[in-house]
Amino acid sequence: MYLCTYEYEGKENVGIMIKDNVSIIPINKLIDESINDMNEFISIYSDKMVFLKKKVNEYSGNLISLNDVKVSSPIRYPRRDILCLGKNYKDHALEIKDFVKNKELIPKYPIYFTKRADRTIGTEDTILRHEQITNEIDYEVELAVIIGKDGINIDKKDVDEYIFGYTIVNDVSARDIQRKHEQWFRGKSLQTFCPMGPYIVTKDEIPSPVALDITCKVNDELRQSSNTKNMIFDIPHIISELSKGIELKTGDIIITGTPSGVGLGFNPPRYLKSGDKIECTIEKIGTLVNYME
Amino acid sequence: MYLCTYEYEGKENVGIMIKDNVSIIPINKLIDESINDMNEFISIYSDKMVFLKKKVNEYSGNLISLNDVKVSSPIRYPRRDILCLGKNYKDHALEIKDFVKNKELIPKYPIYFTKRADRTIGTEDTILRHEQITNEIDYEVELAVIIGKDGINIDKKDVDEYIFGYTIVNDVSARDIQRKHEQWFRGKSLQTFCPMGPYIVTKDEIPSPVALDITCKVNDELRQSSNTKNMIFDIPHIISELSKGIELKTGDIIITGTPSGVGLGFNPPRYLKSGDKIECTIEKIGTLVNYME
Repeated sequence: MYLCTYEYEGKENVGIMIKDNVSIIPINKLIDESINDMNEFISIYSDKMVFLKKKVNEYSGNLISLNDVKVSSPIRYPRRDILCLGKNYKDHALEIKDFVKNKELIPKYPIYFTKRADRTIGTEDTILRHEQITNEIDYEVELAVIIGKDGINIDKKDVDEYIFGYTIVNDVSARDIQRKHEQWFRGKSLQTFCPMGPYIVTKDEIPSPVALDITCKVNDELRQSSNTKNMIFDIPHIISELSKGIELKTGDIIITGTPSGVGLGFNPPRYLKSGDKIECTIEKIGTLVNYME
Repeated sequence: MYLCTYEYEGKENVGIMIKDNVSIIPINKLIDESINDMNEFISIYSDKMVFLKKKVNEYSGNLISLNDVKVSSPIRYPRRDILCLGKNYKDHALEIKDFVKNKELIPKYPIYFTKRADRTIGTEDTILRHEQITNEIDYEVELAVIIGKDGINIDKKDVDEYIFGYTIVNDVSARDIQRKHEQWFRGKSLQTFCPMGPYIVTKDEIPSPVALDITCKVNDELRQSSNTKNMIFDIPHIISELSKGIELKTGDIIITGTPSGVGLGFNPPRYLKSGDKIECTIEKIGTLVNYME
């Protein structure tokens, strides 16, 4: 299923998309319970997908046209900081070798850090420039995995049952802040630096191992192009390892690293400028479009 | 005021400590509202300290003896990941120079990272060994600042009004995991790695700039000893800078770095062993005691 959060008649709702994503079934019309947001939806329905699909097939109520809504970020208010992977594509690890000095060129172990995003932005939304503190804003298209079930010390073979679905995140990064402050948290966490969406695709739509084309364009110029099968550490590895000693919780968002082609990788670097259009696309999920303030 | 979270007759409550911290006034006896936990208390009462003190002075109801309760971590379930400072005491920055290679010895800019602690532990609680994934567990006594009011782009001169109070955190760290995974998040975030307490001291008890003796003993041997005035970046600097572009929220916890004397700083390193007793003390706040599993 394709799930979205949308604004319609001044209110934000969760919806299920049907008919090749041109129509939306409002979730509160489909089921008797009142659902406030996507976090609540995931908590309640993560293990009831078969039931929901049956309801969708039987549904004969009103539909809302995609043309009549504003599609928001699917998870507007993540419950916790976003869990992030650094240098998880070989070609990207190599292009930033001068940025991350004196460490393994290709990491032997996953590099985890976090990104604060108490409020994410959706497709068509604007990324703020924060020009008083940075002038090196960069894009990073990434596949995001949404956790559907609490778990700790998860075996690799069981990882699939802890996944709810997938979406796209642009891991917007201030390179000058990352460089100055050494650890990456601060340069990744400025307001509006977490565009997400446009939709969440539930895991049943995407076969495992996940092999999806992933691209990023800036002003129609292709900058990043790879496939998620090229990750150094794959999704079962990441989830299983990260959960050793740390509990993953329903609604947690893990972003799995970016391929080469970021602005920092060019010589001279090509950072984002005012008015730039950034399009992050992942096969079977869609395209997340944002503009620089 | 000295605030605690305590277990009494099978229930967890927030309390105000009086009579040199030998007696507790249960918060729900003092005020008409029902308060579920410290996060809720901070949200509601952060700017009503004068009112609360008056209520405390007038109080003639039952008191609970500290001897009859189990003191828990003051904030059992932090709403968000703990915000942390790395290398914020010069002597500590120098002792770990081989651990953090090829960077500024003394940081020119604060190093921020986060620590996941969806559940903290309190004084007298046990730190788990996680022996399947680490055998280099280390202690770090730190002054924790609790935020009392939401704020973004906070001026240095206004920082005081955003502070609720102070407590102690032992920023327990798995050095081998930190080293392997480069960014520090994972090695700092294992379950039970965030002992906190014993009490929260509201800011009116501690004059600014904050200059408090800070020590850590392992099995009665003094390992760390400094004063919070020796921080490289002081509290107004940290809060003001961190809030540039990132909103700080009521209940956020910022831990301000550790002085020299951690296990990693010895040659050979002296990591924690099963049964070790770790005592973190900060003047005017108290002593946080924990044991290694």
